[in-house]
Amino acid sequence: MPDQDDKDLDTNLKSLTFSDSQTQNVPYIHKIGVPPKPDLLKEFKTTVKETFFPDDPLRSFKDQTKSRKIVLSMQAIFPILEWGRSYNIKKFRGDLIAGLTIASLCIPQDIGYSKLAYLKPQYGLYSSFVPPLVYAFMGSSRDIAIGPVAVVSLLLGTLVRSEVDPNTEPDEYLRLIFTATFFAGITQATLGVLRLGFLIDFLSHAAVVGFMGGAAITIALQQLKGFLGISSKHFTKETDLISVMKSIFKSAHHGWNWQTIVIGASFLAFLLVAKYIGKKNKKLFWVPAIAPLISVILSTFFVYITHANKEGVAIVGKIDKRINPPSLDKIYFSGDNLLKGFRIGIEAGMIALTEAVAIGRTFASMKDYQVDGNKEMVALGTMNVVGSMTSCYVATGSFSRSAVNYMAGCQTAVSNIVMSIVVLLTVKFLTPLFEYTPNAILSSIIISAVIGLIDIDAAILIWKIDKFDFVACMGAFLGVVFKSVETGLLIAVVISFAKILLQVTRPRTAILGKIPMTSVYRNIEQYPEANRIPGVLIVRVDSAVYFSNSNYVKERILRWLSEEEEDKLKPTCQPRIQFLIVDLSPVTDIDTSGIHAFEELHRSLQKRDVQLVLANPGQQVLDKLYAAHFPNMIGENKIFLTVADAIHTCSIAKSELICEV
Amino acid sequence: MPDQDDKDLDTNLKSLTFSDSQTQNVPYIHKIGVPPKPDLLKEFKTTVKETFFPDDPLRSFKDQTKSRKIVLSMQAIFPILEWGRSYNIKKFRGDLIAGLTIASLCIPQDIGYSKLAYLKPQYGLYSSFVPPLVYAFMGSSRDIAIGPVAVVSLLLGTLVRSEVDPNTEPDEYLRLIFTATFFAGITQATLGVLRLGFLIDFLSHAAVVGFMGGAAITIALQQLKGFLGISSKHFTKETDLISVMKSIFKSAHHGWNWQTIVIGASFLAFLLVAKYIGKKNKKLFWVPAIAPLISVILSTFFVYITHANKEGVAIVGKIDKRINPPSLDKIYFSGDNLLKGFRIGIEAGMIALTEAVAIGRTFASMKDYQVDGNKEMVALGTMNVVGSMTSCYVATGSFSRSAVNYMAGCQTAVSNIVMSIVVLLTVKFLTPLFEYTPNAILSSIIISAVIGLIDIDAAILIWKIDKFDFVACMGAFLGVVFKSVETGLLIAVVISFAKILLQVTRPRTAILGKIPMTSVYRNIEQYPEANRIPGVLIVRVDSAVYFSNSNYVKERILRWLSEEEEDKLKPTCQPRIQFLIVDLSPVTDIDTSGIHAFEELHRSLQKRDVQLVLANPGQQVLDKLYAAHFPNMIGENKIFLTVADAIHTCSIAKSELICEV
Repeated sequence: MPDQDDKDLDTNLKSLTFSDSQTQNVPYIHKIGVPPKPDLLKEFKTTVKETFFPDDPLRSFKDQTKSRKIVLSMQAIFPILEWGRSYNIKKFRGDLIAGLTIASLCIPQDIGYSKLAYLKPQYGLYSSFVPPLVYAFMGSSRDIAIGPVAVVSLLLGTLVRSEVDPNTEPDEYLRLIFTATFFAGITQATLGVLRLGFLIDFLSHAAVVGFMGGAAITIALQQLKGFLGISSKHFTKETDLISVMKSIFKSAHHGWNWQTIVIGASFLAFLLVAKYIGKKNKKLFWVPAIAPLISVILSTFFVYITHANKEGVAIVGKIDKRINPPSLDKIYFSGDNLLKGFRIGIEAGMIALTEAVAIGRTFASMKDYQVDGNKEMVALGTMNVVGSMTSCYVATGSFSRSAVNYMAGCQTAVSNIVMSIVVLLTVKFLTPLFEYTPNAILSSIIISAVIGLIDIDAAILIWKIDKFDFVACMGAFLGVVFKSVETGLLIAVVISFAKILLQVTRPRTAILGKIPMTSVYRNIEQYPEANRIPGVLIVRVDSAVYFSNSNYVKERILRWLSEEEEDKLKPTCQPRIQFLIVDLSPVTDIDTSGIHAFEELHRSLQKRDVQLVLANPGQQVLDKLYAAHFPNMIGENKIFLTVADAIHTCSIAKSELICEV
Repeated sequence: MPDQDDKDLDTNLKSLTFSDSQTQNVPYIHKIGVPPKPDLLKEFKTTVKETFFPDDPLRSFKDQTKSRKIVLSMQAIFPILEWGRSYNIKKFRGDLIAGLTIASLCIPQDIGYSKLAYLKPQYGLYSSFVPPLVYAFMGSSRDIAIGPVAVVSLLLGTLVRSEVDPNTEPDEYLRLIFTATFFAGITQATLGVLRLGFLIDFLSHAAVVGFMGGAAITIALQQLKGFLGISSKHFTKETDLISVMKSIFKSAHHGWNWQTIVIGASFLAFLLVAKYIGKKNKKLFWVPAIAPLISVILSTFFVYITHANKEGVAIVGKIDKRINPPSLDKIYFSGDNLLKGFRIGIEAGMIALTEAVAIGRTFASMKDYQVDGNKEMVALGTMNVVGSMTSCYVATGSFSRSAVNYMAGCQTAVSNIVMSIVVLLTVKFLTPLFEYTPNAILSSIIISAVIGLIDIDAAILIWKIDKFDFVACMGAFLGVVFKSVETGLLIAVVISFAKILLQVTRPRTAILGKIPMTSVYRNIEQYPEANRIPGVLIVRVDSAVYFSNSNYVKERILRWLSEEEEDKLKPTCQPRIQFLIVDLSPVTDIDTSGIHAFEELHRSLQKRDVQLVLANPGQQVLDKLYAAHFPNMIGENKIFLTVADAIHTCSIAKSELICEV
């Protein structure tokens, strides 16, 4: 449709049509769309639907028989019933390889992460057994690898330790961990059921990048303890950079353990080289994936034959061989600890959710399938609730393992089932083998794993794209590194909110001009070639006009006018401004305060003998303007479909055109 | 400029230009404005300026000599130096009459309001002496009448009474009142100096309407005590409707005092009639203005001669004749009470500020002069700080008295000076006359004054204009009436914020169509006559794309596409959708999460073999898209100035036009 052709004709025909139109041949001016009286119930329904059900989850249920509806509901809760039907041996081959690969990666990580949460090694392994199984039945992501992750382990450990000391009261500590895990699951499932999943969107990408980077550094710092062989007694309980560094230098004269350092450093080098190889050649992704297990095997063997543990090299020690003992009776359902667990659970649950949903979305977008955020939350929540009753702590999707899972060619959540079976077998039969594993190796594995969370490229990109986002990013990062995980999180959320509020409080306004050879009006700053129209000031307001900005918008528009009029005082042949056109295209909504502001604007303009004209109000804005009888106030013929229409009418009305543009 | 003429030619010339343009004569398509690399420092400066100095307060200081600058600064702090120079006898006549009128209104109100704050009558009068004087020198509103007001008195009384009992510890109570007043002033002045005045804009008009209405009802309920002659012992300390009604019915058998009721009811009737007369005939505005004073004089005389006080009619009693004793030593500057006073001061200060700024703006807009919000806050803050040191409690602008001031023809803040001198003389010489004034009269005066705060018309208008605003309004109203002033306030603020966040979380999206005979594309819901373009889906996103909505926006656009494609499956001759044009006109900003979402959208569309095209990105959006190299991703020639340009290019590219629209 060559609707644009008019433009090249515009110039040629201008003089002709101009003289014509001024007399009687007024060009076609389309009426603005005055919508019918809005249906309140319908409007309310739409709002509720878009807020809570933007994905229209019940669409497939329409026009189905009752029995079909039951099947569909079951499939909605357990997606495995849907994709399981088309599962085949080819897919299983992919899942088997991927499952074995992530199992080899997760076992050493699990043991390390449980130390990060001040738990015995078996709890990490437990958490890699039950939750992935539950997830496989209920989750909708095909690539996510479920289990304990570094950041959540750190957060949970820090939060619970600030309430109960794991050394003096290990039982209470464990019970509070399970309580927190239970409520983390409840929080996640509740958000999903109530379809409040959008709440996690309030943690911006930038904030997450900063938070993750900070958490990675904090975790790496914590690993220096194991890495340098410092005993817990001499190590600080704080997680911030300064306390940890102080504590490390203080403990230097108590003696770091050089054997530990040698083992740790050499295997860290090995792991980093493996990581580098995997990064350089995507086909060799399995090198960094199995490097940790190889390190564990080699170093354990080395310690076992050299008896290095007698030289002060700390080792993992005996691991309980029982499989996930029930722990429902350990959850606090009353008293003070219930509240503590509840609070910690909410925080840990939200962070775990953010990580899992981000992973789910990333891989879904790479393979182009849909992940239902709310359903996902129900799955994650259920798996943590079940986990809390079977001696697991908060599990979620792991960035590093999900990437390996994806690269190893996983097809469905069956890879999680494979992994969980391998972990089960490990707990049952192989734990004695880990007795002599040096802690330093676990530290090296964790360090090499969390390094991947520091995304400097992303931070640079954020800096380039949006400075305010970068402030949020660095705020979260520095907050975590120099104070605590909680502080960083708080900073990130506050800055993110402040950004939204700032935008709604101080929206941009722009002066528009006509782009030569078109009938299009654009910001004269963005398009310096755009011409102003003599005697008319065109202002665009770049935001919904709400109570938070209505007064600013009004005063800003009046200031534009004053500035313009001051310019006019200079001895040029510019006519006085007679019309103020407000382009409402970006004004998506208005409220009572906004309408008040426009009424006041109109009154002020009347006193200055300037006519207020509106262009392109949207449906909602027009509805409300009519409800407030605003068009009667300024004249119903002062509202136009486009700025060009408005300009045209003004041109006719205006008599003192002193000079041409 | 008849830029619109093209439209009527459009139709005639379409076939000609269409065939032409498809070969080589492509119509003029203006390039999008790729702005120069933004200057970070400049951008930062602009943001800071628009956020904190939107009124450009230093404009008049530009290019001035040093001595002139000093004069200007003094004038900025004390506007009286500016307007005082053009003050004349004619203005003074207006101010004198207005000042005397508001003095006659404020004296009985002051006595009543101080009882509302559980203070002795003189403190109300004190607060009508010092603060108005200070304000007259520093304030920029010409119409505001300063003094104690009902809502702040109630709020302050309720808050302080929840900490200290005024009956058992009257001294501590008074000290805490002064402390709160001091910090209310500090809060107000600080907000002004830090130019954070925009914070009070976060209390929306709707919330204020609801809050004021609720407060009026609460205050009226409190007056039933004095009105029915119930002793304080039998009256509840709660302010909510249910507690008060219970307490009133319980006390019925202790005996209401019928003499009190007769006096109160007859004068309330008189006051309401006077109010009605003033409302019907604007020229008789002085009738309701002096009615309270007449009631006081008549009823006092009546009680004095009938000795009705011996019959159980409660009277005001002796009033201290001293003039504002210093109270700096009574302010708590340490300890627990400092904190309490600080907290209460912030709340009372913010509410007082909201009221004063609303009044200032209303009258400024009626007389078309500017009130500088931040300067105003410094003035109000200073007057309360000075007030707290001279036995005053929180004063602010009174709605009812300011209206009377305006109607009585005040010209400048001199009317406040006149009023304060009259109050001074009253305290010094006339207080003995108030000894026999019955409390019931004060209750009647307060009831008739606060009735004006219940703005049912405004509430109806809010309902008509914006349902969400109405929810905020009713939330605040019901919160105040059924729970407490604080609860109502909290509800109002929370709902107001929720509204902003909801808008940023779930922005509207719309499908656009071409309006016949124009090259304009608009929402097809608003303009049902608009035609869709075959093979092209045009979606407009109605908000900045931020982290809080980026994921929703992406998924919503994809859902539009899916819905459209499903429609296409029906047996009509519609071509498959090949282009998805996103109209970015209302997208005022984007952040890193938003760009991620667009990248993901592009990838998803590629998989479906649909080309993503952008139309009319604003400057900020374009900057960021380029910083993220997004145009390279989708093709730099896929970004257009207008939807029409985009459509034109798509039309040429597209080959399988199966049927016409």
